[in-house]
Amino acid sequence: MDVAELSPAQARERFRAGLRVPTAGWCRGWTQANLIAVPRWLRYELLLFAHHNPQACPVLDVGEPGAWSTALFSGDLRTDLPGYRLYRAGEAVADLDDVVAEWREDLVPFLVGCSFTFERALQAAGVPVRHLELGTNVPMYLTNVPCRPTPSLSGPLVVSMRPVPEELVETAVEVTGRYPMVHGAPVHVGDPAELGIADLASPDFGDPVEVRAGEIPLFWACGVTPQAVVMASGVEFAIGHLPGHMAILDARDDDYRTAS
Amino acid sequence: MDVAELSPAQARERFRAGLRVPTAGWCRGWTQANLIAVPRWLRYELLLFAHHNPQACPVLDVGEPGAWSTALFSGDLRTDLPGYRLYRAGEAVADLDDVVAEWREDLVPFLVGCSFTFERALQAAGVPVRHLELGTNVPMYLTNVPCRPTPSLSGPLVVSMRPVPEELVETAVEVTGRYPMVHGAPVHVGDPAELGIADLASPDFGDPVEVRAGEIPLFWACGVTPQAVVMASGVEFAIGHLPGHMAILDARDDDYRTAS
Repeated sequence: MDVAELSPAQARERFRAGLRVPTAGWCRGWTQANLIAVPRWLRYELLLFAHHNPQACPVLDVGEPGAWSTALFSGDLRTDLPGYRLYRAGEAVADLDDVVAEWREDLVPFLVGCSFTFERALQAAGVPVRHLELGTNVPMYLTNVPCRPTPSLSGPLVVSMRPVPEELVETAVEVTGRYPMVHGAPVHVGDPAELGIADLASPDFGDPVEVRAGEIPLFWACGVTPQAVVMASGVEFAIGHLPGHMAILDARDDDYRTAS
Repeated sequence: MDVAELSPAQARERFRAGLRVPTAGWCRGWTQANLIAVPRWLRYELLLFAHHNPQACPVLDVGEPGAWSTALFSGDLRTDLPGYRLYRAGEAVADLDDVVAEWREDLVPFLVGCSFTFERALQAAGVPVRHLELGTNVPMYLTNVPCRPTPSLSGPLVVSMRPVPEELVETAVEVTGRYPMVHGAPVHVGDPAELGIADLASPDFGDPVEVRAGEIPLFWACGVTPQAVVMASGVEFAIGHLPGHMAILDARDDDYRTAS
């Protein structure tokens, strides 16, 4: 069965069984989200950080302390993502298939919008999405753009990149601008050096894709940003998803499209 | 001197000296904001409530616990508003000229967007604003529309009302829609009964204004909503501004206008 045709429950079942795979292209029409779970004492600051940086950290849902499901995610957040990354003292210490043993009673899970949400709309508008064509993970990069900090949370903006044929750049900007809750329009069009990205072929997360002649790289704010911030800020304990290995929500991509 | 010509610092000085007056029309071009200060333990939930209800509670700024100024308000939040309302156990227990004695070390001040911000733009677009013409406070109403709650915060949406000539309704909707951070477009156009408002002549806060023949009442989400929620939720302690007696920020109305 084509993974695009799976329901969120069917996909989660596969991930729960141990499949570790990027979720780009999975469960067509269903919204995917970034996970960042932090200790309760940090939840106010994380929510404030998200408020200060809405394009990078659009909060779709938040759970109660210790909860492993939320209003928009009826599965088990400890097992139903294809991969997890564990942080201690700001260091990524392990990539895991589940985090049942690590899920503390005071952990507060945040689900943050993901640009996979607008990829179907890009394709429908005739904009090719290379990493979907290749069946790989989207390339993501740390930038030299600082997020607006809070007293104890600071760090760089993370972006995802998609190469777009020159004549379709305007379309891509317009289409994604209709999805402000899942990063919206690109934060940058063109020269990666302006974001401090030295080499597009070496993404910090995900897989590289070719930028062909006549194509322009477009950069969107990315929901991996909170994980970069956890690292830069030396947060004592946090759990994120493995970049590109998302939580698949019980919500529809169209729910996040604005009217215009 | 016309109060519209005053700088924020000049206006705050008058309020600090004891002047208690609604601020509609004051300090033309400078942004006004609602105040709601809650104990530190409640700040996460209040921020989450604001996130859940962005049209009613657009957070422009938040202070540290015990602080009486913020990045956007360089005055003294305890003295530099023209009036305050003190809440204990969900009851409004006093209206005060200052709250120096009441400002606890654990109080966290939130500054919430105010629809006064777009009134100049309405007038510039040819839409009359009656309460400005009359020099009175804007009428505000409790509605029967519930906000999206958090575990311990729930309550009704509060709205402000401006009567608009029928032929200018579309203009008013469009102009205010350009200010999403200060309540944006109306939440309702027309029949007040649909919001559970029995009598426009008896606002719950502010002063009544006449709705003349050929005019339609337009209702905007109002930043007094957090105070209604504090009451409905029985919050142990909170300080708000006296409705219509706003904090005048060191920020410009134009800062909250979107590009389109």
